[in-house]
Amino acid sequence: MRKDKNEEFVCGVNLVEAILRLRPNSAKTLFILETKSNSRIEKISSLANKNKIEVLTKGKEFFHTYFEQENHQGLALLCWNRLEESEDLLDELLKKESLLILILDHLTDPHNVGACLRNAAAVNADAVIVPKNRSCHLTPTVRKVSSGGSELVPFIVVTNLVRTIKKLQMNDVNVIGSDKEGDINYQNIKADKKNALVIGSEDKGLKKLTAKNCDFLVKIEMPGTMESLNASVASGILLFEMIRKN
Amino acid sequence: MRKDKNEEFVCGVNLVEAILRLRPNSAKTLFILETKSNSRIEKISSLANKNKIEVLTKGKEFFHTYFEQENHQGLALLCWNRLEESEDLLDELLKKESLLILILDHLTDPHNVGACLRNAAAVNADAVIVPKNRSCHLTPTVRKVSSGGSELVPFIVVTNLVRTIKKLQMNDVNVIGSDKEGDINYQNIKADKKNALVIGSEDKGLKKLTAKNCDFLVKIEMPGTMESLNASVASGILLFEMIRKN
Repeated sequence: MRKDKNEEFVCGVNLVEAILRLRPNSAKTLFILETKSNSRIEKISSLANKNKIEVLTKGKEFFHTYFEQENHQGLALLCWNRLEESEDLLDELLKKESLLILILDHLTDPHNVGACLRNAAAVNADAVIVPKNRSCHLTPTVRKVSSGGSELVPFIVVTNLVRTIKKLQMNDVNVIGSDKEGDINYQNIKADKKNALVIGSEDKGLKKLTAKNCDFLVKIEMPGTMESLNASVASGILLFEMIRKN
Repeated sequence: MRKDKNEEFVCGVNLVEAILRLRPNSAKTLFILETKSNSRIEKISSLANKNKIEVLTKGKEFFHTYFEQENHQGLALLCWNRLEESEDLLDELLKKESLLILILDHLTDPHNVGACLRNAAAVNADAVIVPKNRSCHLTPTVRKVSSGGSELVPFIVVTNLVRTIKKLQMNDVNVIGSDKEGDINYQNIKADKKNALVIGSEDKGLKKLTAKNCDFLVKIEMPGTMESLNASVASGILLFEMIRKN
């Protein structure tokens, strides 16, 4: 299977459907496992036909070759890479009256980044921001795990996270960091009209300089003896707490 | 590297430390990456020495061979499998005055099951219950992703999930299912002294018969256009909501 450098293979029912629904122009070929047949697959197939996208039926071999490690669910798509946004988009977003942004401070695990994007889409966040270096970006696995969230929420890559946090603050955005040393219980989180939540990396949590520049540090208090939660679980609990307060 | 059939290789700082701390007798050999050195590694190494566990220094090659796909963090352990518990343990637990149990209804992704175990440990749950068939059990990856949670919370395997739910109910346990068709907003979740939360599988949610047998079905309402959350994120939000109510 040939693909251009700006194309990629993605798989999974939710993601493929989201791409065909939200940006059909970025889709080139839909691949369906020959033994797969149900009403959802039919719906997706007719969505492809409607948008004049080639539909091919393939055997198990094909899916095994390209998606050995993944739960492909018998559905794949050759499509354009999902574009990462530059800081210019952030300038546009800052003009909005209310804002909810999720910032990922050097997360490296695509499962975590994907699940965080899914959370962001679930609470209707305006953007996910990640640093350019030493951080997981918008890979096919991230798109798959996000279950379509990657197609809904802009993914902004910035050069310097601390500089971006300062820019947000200068534009009246309340920047809340999640930190096990935080002094505010997450249930007392204070959400303004414009909020950003910063989640630290899997191994090390928030970087010192990031934590220092947040307006507040909140902590998810735990009765058990675990030190911390998975990054995507923590982001889910905190984002849902923030929309509950608004 | 030879290992017996009741032994396995696990990796990652949190998990290895948890095993050496909580069940040192199950550990056989500790492997440390030769270039790795910090105070946490020293602490773990002396914990092994104290318990008369062999400590070996190994090169990158070794870790690459055994843990290619994983974020091993330069630390591995040869140890006994973590024993799954039988239904007998459940009978013991049911004598307790208060109870919090997490039931996973045919989850198959080890990342999800591991993160769910971590959540269960964080809220000090009494057990995680999974069905015997068509379900992910306690693999090395699950133990790794649980970040040590697998060593803290009993993992009970049952033959028939619906029969187990009925048994819980007969013992005054309030069984709450998470379902996108649920009629109760999760913020209004009602937690008694004894509660069990049931989380559905990644693809299909709760099985029909499982949903039918729950006392209540709760729904995490989402302003965004996502259909559902990742199973581990949903379990985190709901478990923390339940302990908040108690």
